Amino acid sequence: MERDFVHWLCERLPAHPRMLVGPGDDAAILRLSEQANLVATTDMLMDGVDFELTRHDPERVGRKALAVNLSDLAAMAAAPVAALVSLALPRRGGEALAKRLYEGMLPLAAEFDCPIAGGDTNSWDGRLVISVTALGEVPSQRRWRRSGARPGDVIVVTGSFGGSILRKQFEFQPRVREALWLAEQTEVHAAIDVSDGLSLDLFRLCEASGCGAAIDLATIPVAAAAEELARQNNDGVQPLNHALGDGEDFELILAVPLESAKVLLVEHSLQTPLTMIGSFISDPGLFAVGEDMQFHPLLPRGYEHRLDS
Amino acid sequence: MERDFVHWLCERLPAHPRMLVGPGDDAAILRLSEQANLVATTDMLMDGVDFELTRHDPERVGRKALAVNLSDLAAMAAAPVAALVSLALPRRGGEALAKRLYEGMLPLAAEFDCPIAGGDTNSWDGRLVISVTALGEVPSQRRWRRSGARPGDVIVVTGSFGGSILRKQFEFQPRVREALWLAEQTEVHAAIDVSDGLSLDLFRLCEASGCGAAIDLATIPVAAAAEELARQNNDGVQPLNHALGDGEDFELILAVPLESAKVLLVEHSLQTPLTMIGSFISDPGLFAVGEDMQFHPLLPRGYEHRLDS
Repeated sequence: MERDFVHWLCERLPAHPRMLVGPGDDAAILRLSEQANLVATTDMLMDGVDFELTRHDPERVGRKALAVNLSDLAAMAAAPVAALVSLALPRRGGEALAKRLYEGMLPLAAEFDCPIAGGDTNSWDGRLVISVTALGEVPSQRRWRRSGARPGDVIVVTGSFGGSILRKQFEFQPRVREALWLAEQTEVHAAIDVSDGLSLDLFRLCEASGCGAAIDLATIPVAAAAEELARQNNDGVQPLNHALGDGEDFELILAVPLESAKVLLVEHSLQTPLTMIGSFISDPGLFAVGEDMQFHPLLPRGYEHRLDS
Repeated sequence: MERDFVHWLCERLPAHPRMLVGPGDDAAILRLSEQANLVATTDMLMDGVDFELTRHDPERVGRKALAVNLSDLAAMAAAPVAALVSLALPRRGGEALAKRLYEGMLPLAAEFDCPIAGGDTNSWDGRLVISVTALGEVPSQRRWRRSGARPGDVIVVTGSFGGSILRKQFEFQPRVREALWLAEQTEVHAAIDVSDGLSLDLFRLCEASGCGAAIDLATIPVAAAAEELARQNNDGVQPLNHALGDGEDFELILAVPLESAKVLLVEHSLQTPLTMIGSFISDPGLFAVGEDMQFHPLLPRGYEHRLDS
């Protein structure tokens, strides 16, 4: 029964000073900081599309459903406030599944100070669907949009790229702490999180900003997992190609003014690597800059969401 | 393609002064009023459970998905701020379906000053799932909880009850305006919206408040649709029973101090009827008070959500 499940869940959810009314009422009431604006994002994950319950542990699936939303908050440099979780559970074993999903979500929620403030738990004859909404806050002047990159800004990325299908798609750390630190310490003109592929999401940021990007391919931080995946597949796809086109890295791409970037890259104290991989340019499109200093057009690649009409 | 759909959608979504960043970025940024707290609620509707796409127009389904969330905001006397909409669309005809869902949602969003600030639009091999999160705001001191009813408070309800399956389940007006007016004009100790049945939701409010309720059955506002349904079904179930046990009326049940209720019921200027149907009492449980002034136990009835274990 849902009633028992909600009881189980409420015992699991720690009180939080920001959560004036938590789960169990018609809605939650949350206190924001003074002068803060509200940031809101939502992502839906479906069994058979974003994960396969036959292969992936529910705890990992639950963690991921929250983590992808926290990654969107990171892309806005927003501090998490709370999350809401809606589930469409398969009838058979639904309650046990729901508990395992939450067991994966709750430690991440605690780690990122993002209490679960409510949700809607249902069962049906279909496969599992998880919809999470994450709420965050930013100081009233902060606007990390996709559209603010300017020619001459440096392209800075967090972490490394490629091969996330091996592990990182479930285990990634949303770059919330990094984003909050960067927002305090340096000037950032634009940002996006890499959910669909480094080159594709960089292209989207360029499109939104009305500019292009020139990338020095030799500087791209290629993940060890990209090397591992290339070896495993042995299909001629190079690790660099995995880094450019694999989705679900959930790293950040930032547009940083050149002078700020010079200081930042030398002096930052983050444990997560920051790497300059090129510059924004006024010509639209993506270009690879080789040792010959020539611009070679680069096709944005990654996961494209399609709706069939 | 999702890109085309998002483009279509963004053209449909009017700008709103509260929406500093709207759909199309990693998250939305929303400005709340000063001194306001944030109210957040989410509800998920599934094809085959909450509606049947083979029988119900997508526009009505879309409207309902937003309306049930606005009803939860009403139960907290929260002014709508924005909504987020996630869709899992069947692959075949997904984009056309998404547009029709939004065509049903957008007029309601405009009517309640609740801009759609973002979402996630997906397709899959399963049936339609709609998850909506509604965000609202309340003055920092306002807490319309389920748990505040006190013995001696009067039970006040909006509108009328029963037979919603005939029309009202899709056409109901979330009682947002009524709630905001009531919150300004009178004292309300507790509130809940009737999603699962008048007697069941009243019982839930009693449980949360640690009290019971005595109802004068003769005063319950029975909807014309309840009479109509009883006639159609001709199964011996009386209109009053439909009023007590049918779900999806989306009216409000309020606990109002006696003195305030006396003034309110005589002087209110709402177009929606307000009716006193009984009183909260210290003994737990629901009781019907007949002409004999005796208390007869009343079984709470309505739609119980169950999770199979």
